[in-house]
Order: sequence, then structure tokens, then C-alpha cells
Amino acid sequence: MKLTILFGGASFEHEISIVSAITLKEKLHDFDLSFVFCDSEHIFYSIDKKKMKANTFSKGEYKKMPQLHLAQGGFTQKSMFSSMHHTGTVLNLIHGADGEDGTIASLLDFFSIKYIGPRIDASVFSFDKRYTKYLANAVGVKSVKYEVLYADRHTDIKMPFPIIVKPSRLGSSIGVSIVKEESELDYALDTAFEFDKSVIVEPFLEGVKEYNLAGYKANGEMFYSIVEEPQKEEFLNFEKKYMDFSRSEQVLKADISEELIAKLQASFEKIYDGLFEGALIRCDFFVVDGDVLLNEINPIPGSMANYLFEDFKQAIEDLSESLPHSKRVKSTYEYIHSISAAKGK
Amino acid sequence: MKLTILFGGASFEHEISIVSAITLKEKLHDFDLSFVFCDSEHIFYSIDKKKMKANTFSKGEYKKMPQLHLAQGGFTQKSMFSSMHHTGTVLNLIHGADGEDGTIASLLDFFSIKYIGPRIDASVFSFDKRYTKYLANAVGVKSVKYEVLYADRHTDIKMPFPIIVKPSRLGSSIGVSIVKEESELDYALDTAFEFDKSVIVEPFLEGVKEYNLAGYKANGEMFYSIVEEPQKEEFLNFEKKYMDFSRSEQVLKADISEELIAKLQASFEKIYDGLFEGALIRCDFFVVDGDVLLNEINPIPGSMANYLFEDFKQAIEDLSESLPHSKRVKSTYEYIHSISAAKGK
Repeated sequence: MKLTILFGGASFEHEISIVSAITLKEKLHDFDLSFVFCDSEHIFYSIDKKKMKANTFSKGEYKKMPQLHLAQGGFTQKSMFSSMHHTGTVLNLIHGADGEDGTIASLLDFFSIKYIGPRIDASVFSFDKRYTKYLANAVGVKSVKYEVLYADRHTDIKMPFPIIVKPSRLGSSIGVSIVKEESELDYALDTAFEFDKSVIVEPFLEGVKEYNLAGYKANGEMFYSIVEEPQKEEFLNFEKKYMDFSRSEQVLKADISEELIAKLQASFEKIYDGLFEGALIRCDFFVVDGDVLLNEINPIPGSMANYLFEDFKQAIEDLSESLPHSKRVKSTYEYIHSISAAKGK
Repeated sequence: MKLTILFGGASFEHEISIVSAITLKEKLHDFDLSFVFCDSEHIFYSIDKKKMKANTFSKGEYKKMPQLHLAQGGFTQKSMFSSMHHTGTVLNLIHGADGEDGTIASLLDFFSIKYIGPRIDASVFSFDKRYTKYLANAVGVKSVKYEVLYADRHTDIKMPFPIIVKPSRLGSSIGVSIVKEESELDYALDTAFEFDKSVIVEPFLEGVKEYNLAGYKANGEMFYSIVEEPQKEEFLNFEKKYMDFSRSEQVLKADISEELIAKLQASFEKIYDGLFEGALIRCDFFVVDGDVLLNEINPIPGSMANYLFEDFKQAIEDLSESLPHSKRVKSTYEYIHSISAAKGK
């Protein structure tokens, strides 16, 4: 199948998006792939498939490649004599800001470009950890209790240490700290507030079981990946996560009961249903005393969590056949006509 | 001051956006105004101020005016020899879809154009009535109890009649019905599901007091309009609302206690704070047994609720001095460099 991979973006996860795109180039090598790069100035470039390597971007070589512009139905390439269109389905692979906050979704929707990825509402609920809590609460999925702090006002934290401090709106562990005692708190808050105006505080759950599950809806049905138990460390730092985004080999299934798998899938579906259609997402869960708690939603997981699927290519093909498209309302000017007619009487 | 009014959009409220824009042309006549129209094909046009009347749009005359394209920093007008930029602050006056759902906010943010209007998160929480409930609940503002129905599955309504049935995502009373008994329900649901896949059902509160309050934050401080008690009818139909969007004369203050005004303002601030910065919004409240309940949030109220402000021009000027702007992250390619260096060893 034809697929345009859109990657880059002006975000802290710009580089891991490049790594994700390079990984998918290998993983989907028998697709008819093309690559569109969004640089941190928000300029789009058409990237020659053969040049899809990290140096092309870090050395700025992409700037010699053709610029693209958004137009109704696709990306347009202005050249001397013609204007080419990249009109196929787009895979939104921009992690973090731009890609996961709803901006790219809006652009693609506005210009009537078909895409795999979270729609605008889904993006807003997954990008900000506060809003993920609102969602989980509203659809009846448990999550870790939390408090919100704001940079511009002082609020005492009510929960006891150890706690985990996270900027509300970043992924990939950026700005996240575990705070074991009062003396470490100020530094952790300063770090988190460097990245966002609001910060989420949660109890740090020691020895908790963590499980990741990816999935998508196609033809009205949910499809799930295997459940993975991610490697156990206090939490992944950015560099480790970065390497993690280049994974392409299928991982081992977590050794858990069918009953727990069913519970994880049921929670996943409550979050996904009616909101994430069109996207392949990964939900990260905690299991505490048999309760499934939502930790976070990755609406564009690193390298699309390809390593969790037995047949990743089929997943992308199925999903691309089931993309939602918004109806565009045409104006009939019925009210203006009727008012003009009334005035003319 | 210089201000570009952006109006139109592909939505059921396309026409009332035109009416709003024409109203503001009069109301802000001593500003240096320019007008950008988004038609229902999502093409932008620069509209000559003298042609700002309803017929220009209903008769399609706008199509003879210069087309505009979004570019970094503003709208670009391609002509034979030059490319003009409309680079001033934009007032997003597109009601309903596009303008209030976060799409236009994303476009303006992506292209670094300063604008008055709700940001993407604020749009998502106010555009979908379900998400408005999530927000109210999370920030401690009461609202009317509700149930959600979906077009693709059958759910019995638990609350007793009379009820009010609303599509989740439309404004201006489109698709809304009051259902007094079982026999009227199917028709009301069919009507609402014509406009959205999900529908909100609330008890219809007879004889409830309704109050509208507009406001905005500038220089870190909240500013409020007068409180209006809107005209009493079961609810406004679309044609009446439509006329309502052309209001430009200040209305009378509601005859209520200072204590109630303070309560309404306190609820408004809880909703606004940290989410609606950059926008002048109107919140519509019910008061039931002394309790203030949020009914809905209009993040781009008709003709900007100018008729609720004693000095509307000053409000727009103050707000335009206090617009949030998102920091754009530049990539240093630090990780790619360090990984390349490690590989080179």
C-alpha cells in the first residue's frame, strides 16, 4: 500500500520522531512509502527515501530537498513548471507537541488529507495528563490519584512522599522526577515547571506491576496487541526511551492470566471507544491489588508499537481502510436569503 | 488598533459568523480592520471592507476577491509581482465547527499568527458538551446532570421526562429538542443524531433562572461583563439566535444581588483559569435553589458578546495585549549527535 510518513515537528521529541520514521522505513519496507518532514520552523520537506537517515536531519541536509505546502487534498510541491501532490494516506508519526497535541490532526483535517493518527479531541485528552485523568474518570477507568500544581500560585502537596512529579504535557519522561523526601521537592518542581505551567503529582507506587497494551479499531471491531511488561527500572530516562523508539523486533508476551488480559482490554476499549478511532494507540497500565489503573495514553507510540504486533503491516493496512472522515458542512445561505427576502417586502 | 477579523468556516454556523463579522465592523469602526473569509471549501479570501455585507457571500461575489494562503507569520496574498502579508493580530470569529472546535486555533498556532480566541484545549472542552461536563466536574463547578447516548448502540434513558436532547457538538440550538413524553423521543433523537454521533440528555428544568456572563483575562486579571438575564422562551430557535448574533446595543443588567454576581464570577473564573487565556468567552449559567450550574461555554460568542460590555473596544484592546504565545521548541540534534559519536568509536 501507499503511505506517506509525516515526522519531525517542533517538539522535545523531534529526534525520536526521526528515529521512529527510520524504524518504520525498515519495518514497512514493502509498502510504497514516501516521507514528509516537518522541521522545527514548521516548514515541510519531501525527503528522498534513500536519504532517510539521522544525519540528513542533524546536519541540515534536508534543507536542500523540495519544500512542500499544505493544500486541499495533500501536500503540494512547487517546482518550475508543475505542482506535484502527495495525496495518499498520511501516517502522523510526529511525537509530542504538534503531532500529539491536536495541531497536526487539525491541519490534516482542514486540508482534507486522510490520516492515521489521533483526531483533535483524542489528542487533547491524551497529551495533557490532567485531561487524561478527566477522561478516565468520566468513562469509568481507574487511574492513580493526583494533585495539580501551577507555576503561578503556591499550593501545598497533600499526599505523602515518595511522589512522582511530571509536567502536565510532555511525554518520554522529560522533566519527570521521583521525589522521596521534602528536600528533593524544590528541584523536582523547578525542573518540571521548566517544561510546563502546570505539574501533576502522583504517589510513586513502588514495586507496582506495569503493562503496556496497544490496539486500534478497524471495521467496527477492536484489535489488540500482545501485552508487554516493560523492563523494570524506576522509570526510563530520555536516552533509554530514545533507544526504545527504534525497536522493531517483537517482544515477549507478559506472563499474565487470560483474566488480567481481558481486564486490560476492557479498560483499553473504554478509553478508545468513540474518541481514538483512526489511531493505533498504546495504553500503559498499572496493576495494583488486582485493580487496573490507567497510567498514560500514547496516541502515537514510538515506532507505532510495531514490536507488540504479530502482523504489524496488516494492522496498518486494516486501520487505513477504517479511517474516520469528517463531513464538511456546505452553506446554503438559507438564512441570509430569507432575511434579505423579508427585508425586501 | 489593527485587527484582522477571520470569519466564515465550514459549519452550520457559517452564516451567523458572517452576521457577527458585519456587526463587529460597525461596533469597531474606528479600528484599522481587515477581513479574511474562510469559505465552506476552506479557501481563504481577503474581503474588501466596503463589501462586508451579507450578499457578498450569499451571491458568491467573494470568489472574485483575492485568495489568501496561510504562511509563517500571516496570510499571504499571491499576486503577479508580489506577495502581501496580513500579519496583524487575528480575531477568530468563526462560530461552530472549524472556529470553536480547535481547528482554526491549531492553524493559527502552527503558522505563528497572534490571535484572540480559544486555544486548542479550550476549544475541545467547550465544543463538545460531554467534555464541558468533564471540565466542570474536574474544576469543581456544578452542572446539570446528564446522560450520553450513542448512535451506534441502544441505551435506555434513566431520567424522567421532560428532558432536553442535544447533539454533543453543535451550538446555536441546532438539533436540540425538548421532549415532554415518551412519544416525542424517537423524533427528537433522530433529529439530534442527524448532527452528531453522540447526544446529551439532560432534565429540562422548567422555570429555571438563566444568566449569561462574559469575561476575559488581561494582564493577569479577570474582567467581567455585566450579567444578562436572556429573554425567556423555552429555548431560542436557530432563527432567533441568528438575529441575536447581530446585537450591538448594550443590554440591561440582570436584577440580581451582588452575592449572586460574585458566585457567577467565581464559577466563571474556575472554568476560565489556565485554559481560556487569550479568549473572550461567555458562560451561560442556570441558578437552581441558589446553586450556580454551568449550562454551556461559548468560547467565541455571537458578535463577541459586545452588547454585554460597557467598553467593548477597550476589552478587545486589553485582550490583544495579553495573548498567550506558545514557545516553539528548536531541535539541537543532541541525541542523534551523541549516538552517532558513540557508533563512531
